[in-house]
Amino acid sequence: MRQAVLAAAVDILATEGLAGATVAAVAGAAGVHETSVYRRWKTRENLILDALTTELDAALPIPDTGDVREDLERFFGSLASLLAGAHGRALLRLSVERDDSLDESRRAYWTDRLDRAAAMVERGVERGELVEGTDPGLLIEAVSGPLFARVLLSGASWGDTLVPRLVALALDGSRPRTDGGSGGS
Amino acid sequence: MRQAVLAAAVDILATEGLAGATVAAVAGAAGVHETSVYRRWKTRENLILDALTTELDAALPIPDTGDVREDLERFFGSLASLLAGAHGRALLRLSVERDDSLDESRRAYWTDRLDRAAAMVERGVERGELVEGTDPGLLIEAVSGPLFARVLLSGASWGDTLVPRLVALALDGSRPRTDGGSGGS
Repeated sequence: MRQAVLAAAVDILATEGLAGATVAAVAGAAGVHETSVYRRWKTRENLILDALTTELDAALPIPDTGDVREDLERFFGSLASLLAGAHGRALLRLSVERDDSLDESRRAYWTDRLDRAAAMVERGVERGELVEGTDPGLLIEAVSGPLFARVLLSGASWGDTLVPRLVALALDGSRPRTDGGSGGS
Repeated sequence: MRQAVLAAAVDILATEGLAGATVAAVAGAAGVHETSVYRRWKTRENLILDALTTELDAALPIPDTGDVREDLERFFGSLASLLAGAHGRALLRLSVERDDSLDESRRAYWTDRLDRAAAMVERGVERGELVEGTDPGLLIEAVSGPLFARVLLSGASWGDTLVPRLVALALDGSRPRTDGGSGGS
């Protein structure tokens, strides 16, 4: 039952927004009793957050290829693909929608899910690919922030090169390197 | 008259949002006749965009210190200060507010204003501080995107070190440098 209810919740959230995602509507779409939904999730807020978290974690797997650049390009490539589609954009817009029935502090579910990506950066530091003291959160924000800003502010689309270029900037910087290279991207 | 009307428009936008910023309300707050506003700006949309553009350009001067890191830290420091305040946050939230009376393509006024910052990057390339072929827009997005995302998605605040750290990441990268340094930041 859990998968059917969560899938129905994500569909309704993406098509009708927060206001449409009532427990009754989700239960109806999933073909289960409203009381069963309340028994399992207790509140509408728990249901919505469980649906979004499960959806995002499934859409954004954390790669472990042994190469930090490759890992980051794959992970943020998944994020870019998600945000390039109507479904992902709708889910992102939920974050900026005001809804008094949801705790404001829980709006951070996107950025919370991205915190999982820290593991890729930490492995890069352990392998010596990144300098000691690299801040995983900062690096993640420097690549994801521009994608979020494009969707929310300008609506600008992007091609296949944006993610590799953002990853390259965060890894290589824009100051000349005496070792002469951007590491091959 | 222009300054009084634009200042009134920005005040109303920040306190009451797009819906409150009617020509009548702005004219009333500025103490001028509504017909005078229409004579000068023709439409409500022109008035709102002129107000936002003028406000943002005044709040975000483009420094020219001769040092690209210093220029970028000052510019994005101004942006961070603006966005840390209730006024700036309210103006940013206008970008994600839906309003059928405004052309959707004009929502990009924040990112459009940031395009002015390209001059700092271009001067850095000319001085040899940055590699040839550095994309000014990409660098600007890598620093501004995280600030926008924090305000819009997580609501997280930041301290004085976030901007210098984002600038350092975009300039120096996170891969080890054989010249041994982050350029002194």
